[in-house]
Amino acid sequence: MSPSGHPVDALGALVEALKHLPGVGAKSAQRMAYHLLQHDRPAAQQLAHALQTAVSQVRHCARCHTFTEQPVCLTCLDPARDARQLCVVETPADQAALERTGSYRGLYFVLMGRLSPLDGIGAQAIGLPELIDRVWDREGVPVEEVIVATNFNAEGEVTAHVIAEALKPRGVRVTRLARGVPVGSELEYVDLGTIAHALSERR
Amino acid sequence: MSPSGHPVDALGALVEALKHLPGVGAKSAQRMAYHLLQHDRPAAQQLAHALQTAVSQVRHCARCHTFTEQPVCLTCLDPARDARQLCVVETPADQAALERTGSYRGLYFVLMGRLSPLDGIGAQAIGLPELIDRVWDREGVPVEEVIVATNFNAEGEVTAHVIAEALKPRGVRVTRLARGVPVGSELEYVDLGTIAHALSERR
Ligand SMILES: [Zn+2]
Ligand SMILES: [Zn+2]
Repeated sequence: MSPSGHPVDALGALVEALKHLPGVGAKSAQRMAYHLLQHDRPAAQQLAHALQTAVSQVRHCARCHTFTEQPVCLTCLDPARDARQLCVVETPADQAALERTGSYRGLYFVLMGRLSPLDGIGAQAIGLPELIDRVWDREGVPVEEVIVATNFNAEGEVTAHVIAEALKPRGVRVTRLARGVPVGSELEYVDLGTIAHALSERR
Repeated sequence: MSPSGHPVDALGALVEALKHLPGVGAKSAQRMAYHLLQHDRPAAQQLAHALQTAVSQVRHCARCHTFTEQPVCLTCLDPARDARQLCVVETPADQAALERTGSYRGLYFVLMGRLSPLDGIGAQAIGLPELIDRVWDREGVPVEEVIVATNFNAEGEVTAHVIAEALKPRGVRVTRLARGVPVGSELEYVDLGTIAHALSERR
């Protein structure tokens, strides 16, 4: 119901729902709704179906926390990957950027975020306890090196620092991508050559 | 199926579907998908439901062409509106902006677009034949004045000109909002006082 007591109409409800998308304000939501209803109803139906399928099917990998439709993702299950190396990234997009370089054959741990105390995102929210368990796990191949590939901005650096402090006492080598990656940039926007270079010169 | 022959995963399908929203590129779509799946699955379900409801329920008013869930919209059915005046606007958002001024008590015709020959949007697409029929209709209260309130940019001006040329030979008074509205601007972003002023000084 709207504040005036009239039932919210279907168009108004659609505009409201679109406003929940990140970066979409009232005007953009209205334009999106008009566009879909006037020019592309098949796209609206496709989006509705994709949303429902994703919400019901997509979960987090029990090993690396990335999005997957299986209990454990295909990367974690891949026997060709080097389980002695574990690369910690903020998002699946960052993981995808590293994969595209073709320079890394180890495994991943995806934080699905970064530390941001001001936003209430603490160690639990980025899975730090599970990361420590993962590294500490003495079943299977032991992790010898954790490559921290969080973004090179303030929150990413803090996240990297906290991870390094948590892991160093446990006898694992903790490295960081070399600073070939421009400071202040977001990893997923960096060109592949720079990422490959930074990977080979990690410290 | 993806080009590689693997089935497209639910996350990838969601990103693709989000890219159909106007103004949303690959990076934005990915961020939207991650945000919904990581932080706001209820919003994803709400959006899916709103899309399906809107696609199945929202149609065009048989009288004025605006979006409605009834055969004829509530504005067209309102006996308190002055049927001698017909205001032609490009979008429901423009109609809503005029309504918010409280200065207009006539009826509307919503083009649901504007003439744009380069984009293949001609007189049929904006309902010009139906507008002429609507003005020419001798059942009910005759339309005495058509106020053309298309936007004051190039395409809106061309649209206004074509409408005026089509209606003038039929003996109806065709006016245009006064140029108090800044040239080059989009009506829905103009402040209410300016719109009200332009309405009272229509020529
Ligand atoms: Zn995994
Ligand atoms: Zn109507």
